[in-house]
Amino acid sequence: MTESAKPARIGATYLIETAHPLEKAATIMAGEQSSGTFLKVPGETPELQRTFGARVESITELGEVAEPSLPGARGPREGGRTIQRARVRLSFPTGNIALSLPNLLTMLAGNLYELSPFSGLRLETVDLPESFVTQFAGPQFGVTGTRQMAGVQDRPLIGTIIKPSVGLSPEDTAALVQKLCEAGLDFIKDDELIANPPYSPIRERVAACMRVINDHADRTGRKVMYAFNITDEIAAMRRHHDVVKAAGGTCVMMSLNSVGLTGVQAVRQTCELPIHGHRNGWGALSRHPSLGFDYRAWQVFWKLAGADHLHVNGLENKFCESDESVLASARACLAGLHGRHQVMPVFSSGQWARQAFRTYRELGSTDLLYVCGGGIMGHPDGIAAGVQSVRQAWAAAAAGQSEAEALADDRNRELSRAVEFFSGVEK
Amino acid sequence: MTESAKPARIGATYLIETAHPLEKAATIMAGEQSSGTFLKVPGETPELQRTFGARVESITELGEVAEPSLPGARGPREGGRTIQRARVRLSFPTGNIALSLPNLLTMLAGNLYELSPFSGLRLETVDLPESFVTQFAGPQFGVTGTRQMAGVQDRPLIGTIIKPSVGLSPEDTAALVQKLCEAGLDFIKDDELIANPPYSPIRERVAACMRVINDHADRTGRKVMYAFNITDEIAAMRRHHDVVKAAGGTCVMMSLNSVGLTGVQAVRQTCELPIHGHRNGWGALSRHPSLGFDYRAWQVFWKLAGADHLHVNGLENKFCESDESVLASARACLAGLHGRHQVMPVFSSGQWARQAFRTYRELGSTDLLYVCGGGIMGHPDGIAAGVQSVRQAWAAAAAGQSEAEALADDRNRELSRAVEFFSGVEK
Repeated sequence: MTESAKPARIGATYLIETAHPLEKAATIMAGEQSSGTFLKVPGETPELQRTFGARVESITELGEVAEPSLPGARGPREGGRTIQRARVRLSFPTGNIALSLPNLLTMLAGNLYELSPFSGLRLETVDLPESFVTQFAGPQFGVTGTRQMAGVQDRPLIGTIIKPSVGLSPEDTAALVQKLCEAGLDFIKDDELIANPPYSPIRERVAACMRVINDHADRTGRKVMYAFNITDEIAAMRRHHDVVKAAGGTCVMMSLNSVGLTGVQAVRQTCELPIHGHRNGWGALSRHPSLGFDYRAWQVFWKLAGADHLHVNGLENKFCESDESVLASARACLAGLHGRHQVMPVFSSGQWARQAFRTYRELGSTDLLYVCGGGIMGHPDGIAAGVQSVRQAWAAAAAGQSEAEALADDRNRELSRAVEFFSGVEK
Repeated sequence: MTESAKPARIGATYLIETAHPLEKAATIMAGEQSSGTFLKVPGETPELQRTFGARVESITELGEVAEPSLPGARGPREGGRTIQRARVRLSFPTGNIALSLPNLLTMLAGNLYELSPFSGLRLETVDLPESFVTQFAGPQFGVTGTRQMAGVQDRPLIGTIIKPSVGLSPEDTAALVQKLCEAGLDFIKDDELIANPPYSPIRERVAACMRVINDHADRTGRKVMYAFNITDEIAAMRRHHDVVKAAGGTCVMMSLNSVGLTGVQAVRQTCELPIHGHRNGWGALSRHPSLGFDYRAWQVFWKLAGADHLHVNGLENKFCESDESVLASARACLAGLHGRHQVMPVFSSGQWARQAFRTYRELGSTDLLYVCGGGIMGHPDGIAAGVQSVRQAWAAAAAGQSEAEALADDRNRELSRAVEFFSGVEK
């Protein structure tokens, strides 16, 4: 068969930890997630196995560990009980499932987490054939569309979050939005804890905030993008979307893990605005390094479901994640799947001007949302100065300057003030 | 304020692990998930804090641990760095969110998994006020409705799974279903790996299998319940449901974690059949004992979303879960929320006749689905004998007999044969 005539397969790599021989362990994974069982059943013919079986493509040994990472695993009945780690690459026939994201997820990340040979199992990467990827709508706006709607080119969109997270009335929110617009922000988002609560019904919050944003746009020619949190049941999300759209809003936010894959897909179908994908709950899926999902795998599903922006945490963040992990996530967002479906990574958590330098150096791109809370709001000279400090940092970084070079430029006064002030503050 | 006039609150307990003083750590959780931030912001008044703040209701110390369970956590800047575990009970004002499951999930299990003070954080239980619970449709059929539709009272529904998991044509599936109906099974389910694939389109599978099931029902007066896996995108799930319903089918299955909360809710709205809730992916959320979710918390969301059956694994299962954990899950399914929304626990994985005795003794109920693969199909005298062995075990167990007493009864021949045979087989 020529290369192009070979039926495409779905690939996935896993980090595993097991006391079984690696080849046996990998074969168990492949069997459990396709046509194999260890108790042979009558219908399971060699031909069926050839057509539908998942294949072990490669096994890379990663060394021994002293203790199992997860409890409950069982070793082999005989033989050594050394626990080994390895990277296993499996491939699945595309014909095993319909073109359906939930069924893809079940195939790649279903029951196998509970298999007893494994004291660790993590889905690291997913590689889909182009013929599979092109069947999904994916992000409707992505990087280019978001930039157009926000009127921002050649630098990150600089944003902030409405705080306090819970309890602010629509009027108080709008008053804050007024200040944020005047300060020069490109992007504002709801906290994930506010959606459509009694104290701030989304209809009223949208009306109050969009009045301010539209007035500001009329005066300045630039419409600040506000990601209103429409997270809810599906019919309600569609209603909330329509409220945002009708009021002239340009973005909606969804808590992806809470809504679920098919809910995001359903909203995407009729959505006319960029979807800002919040990843709250992600820690439960990822915080143990030998369990759950690597972001590189997780983001594939949400790209295909239609998110336009995906949160990636930020460098020197307030959470538990390493900078290396954050950068790998951001690169995955920007990488696209077969040259399409790129999404905008959202940097957030403990961000202020300084991280612009390393973020740009590592990423080589300004195609991102840079969301600062205290790092803008807490600038000693006010919010506008906070925005300026971040803009100055990104302009210098994108021009190839180091932080020291940027600080040597007298025009970067707000940046200098930010560095003086925030360097001393516990992040 | 009198007890009844007090506004109801949403309660949640968490297992935490932290190097910070416990009270401080609990306050951080409460603040992050409600109106508090550590960098005070202008709108955050004491009154707002009183109205919207989550409260720390109790802290129970559980002792010290030598090493952090999860990487990335940070200890306090000064003071002892002993790592402690504790159970923390928080309560949240119901007014912080709309009556919305995804927003409930984000409030109780959102960003807090990533908070840096914690080297372990697991949501253990969720307690909702009755006024909240009654707003959700919940399971439409539950235990009573399922029993009515299956025509089975006073004992568990005895079921099996179509195997091989992947690759069987509709005709071959129907031929197997024919045998299973004749063998006396109450319940048959698709494997979670088969939904609507090219080799077995659900329309054709349903048509072929329901022809067999309906014919059998015409002859015997009893319709075997088949849980067809309708997992897919929402519009497709609704179509698949309609196909099952139109053909006279009595159950649909969904992979809950893959579909997501709002997708299950959307299907439930127009669903006319019991929803068999498969939990594949659950291991990723639960396998580390200091991360993710306890089943007692997880099942609350799926009950409210409308699942009628929920998988709980089984005693002496092939997976990694302890029997104690399985029993706690089953009890949670049967417990209901404020006297409603009970669902049928599904026992599956390595089940055969023997586990009936301890399952009944521990649970005190036969309100369950008892699903055996090899434990029925592999009976030395055939499938019908396999079904009989399980029925005999459950009848004896429910009559208060021990396994030894049941084996002493000559009428339990199939049970005796199962015990002889399976006792020697590696599970």
